[in-house]
Amino acid sequence: MTPAAALPHAALQARPRMVGILGGMGPAAGADFVRLFVEACRARMQALGMAVCDQAYPEHWLAQLPVPDRTAALDDPRPGAYQPGDALLQATGRLAALGVQAVAMACNTAHAWHGLLQERFPQLTVLHMPREVAALLRPQGRRRVGLLATQGTYRSGLYRLALEQAGIDCREPDAAGRERLMQGIYDGVKAGDMALARRCFGEVAQALRDAADADVIVMGCTEIPLALDEAAAGAPLLDAAQVLADALAREAYRAYRPQA
Amino acid sequence: MTPAAALPHAALQARPRMVGILGGMGPAAGADFVRLFVEACRARMQALGMAVCDQAYPEHWLAQLPVPDRTAALDDPRPGAYQPGDALLQATGRLAALGVQAVAMACNTAHAWHGLLQERFPQLTVLHMPREVAALLRPQGRRRVGLLATQGTYRSGLYRLALEQAGIDCREPDAAGRERLMQGIYDGVKAGDMALARRCFGEVAQALRDAADADVIVMGCTEIPLALDEAAAGAPLLDAAQVLADALAREAYRAYRPQA
Repeated sequence: MTPAAALPHAALQARPRMVGILGGMGPAAGADFVRLFVEACRARMQALGMAVCDQAYPEHWLAQLPVPDRTAALDDPRPGAYQPGDALLQATGRLAALGVQAVAMACNTAHAWHGLLQERFPQLTVLHMPREVAALLRPQGRRRVGLLATQGTYRSGLYRLALEQAGIDCREPDAAGRERLMQGIYDGVKAGDMALARRCFGEVAQALRDAADADVIVMGCTEIPLALDEAAAGAPLLDAAQVLADALAREAYRAYRPQA
Repeated sequence: MTPAAALPHAALQARPRMVGILGGMGPAAGADFVRLFVEACRARMQALGMAVCDQAYPEHWLAQLPVPDRTAALDDPRPGAYQPGDALLQATGRLAALGVQAVAMACNTAHAWHGLLQERFPQLTVLHMPREVAALLRPQGRRRVGLLATQGTYRSGLYRLALEQAGIDCREPDAAGRERLMQGIYDGVKAGDMALARRCFGEVAQALRDAADADVIVMGCTEIPLALDEAAAGAPLLDAAQVLADALAREAYRAYRPQA
């Protein structure tokens, strides 16, 4: 029997595209993003009428690197300082060398460097989380979206711009609310104090719902869903990481059509 | 200001060692292994008296590849057939090229190829899940361990051997129990039917506890903890993947000593 003859039938068929995930921002959020992506692939296979088995998932690689803090870098872009963009370029280069065709960043604030990555790696599709969120919300008729995010994401205007272009108002917390979110992200999730994180996120979500009359609250930081649910928020929540994971699964199965 | 002068202090210190995870067997178990590893790193940092922050985690890469079914391959090792060892060697080679120094396989049955990987990559530490489990249980004085695993893992004798060498009896389910476990793993977890998986795993765990008088039940398949808890098992459980994740975190921080 020749090696080729012994290949199982599945190995001769088209494979889903290989994709990569840039993580480490923080590592728990990166791990959770892989979980969301695996679930999104399963849902995609079911929607395509494919049999779900381990070998039908796309090959995917997760890079969890120590990336300098994104919000701090946006506040202090000293020339010569070690910047998040350096670490993100290095990791994307290695993902490209492995052969991935599309990349998702499991960090909202890191999208401030999206343009840099997409420009330097034109052969890759670098997904854009805020644009994916806007593309999902627009046909749902949402008009006022509350945003929970880091100071860096607010200052960069990543969501404001993407949502405005979709005709959606982006409502943001006041200065005290933003500080409270940073406390929940850094002293809460990143330091392992989930109870503190839940209190911080819940308070700000409720204030956004009441004061800003938001239709839905977007969790625009991958650390936030690790400690916030609709019970604590008192409002409908949308996890931007979930939206991005769905988009990455669509990229992986882009060549597939539903089976009869 | 020169680039070097602008480097933050942390960048000049020792870094934890870079490690890799072989996943995809199945992908949900691989994602869950990263979660366990990130938690194990946090616990390790706390035990070492280090401040926990994103940048203090070891760089780690997860490879989720379509690996041929391990149990099926152990039943049918036709020469020339595409074997799990091929996919595992290819992924390990790419992890080695990325620069990892230690590798963990997020699949028990795949350890049938552990010797091959360790022999071909002598520069890497390839961790061995059953030996890590035996090394943990021995000083606890456990003498009768019930094993939940795939047919491939039972037939390979991976746990029996590792536990025997530690002076521990390995108690296994009867033929019907093993079939029931395979149903829970393949028709349950891998196909997305978690309720079925929980029933299958719970029944076999209870039978092992009652018939085999096991002190503790080892979940020796990374799919099993995704659907089994102590309430359903009715017995103390040990997750072999958790033990392996702890071992990988120890490898990553091997050069570190507790800080005063």
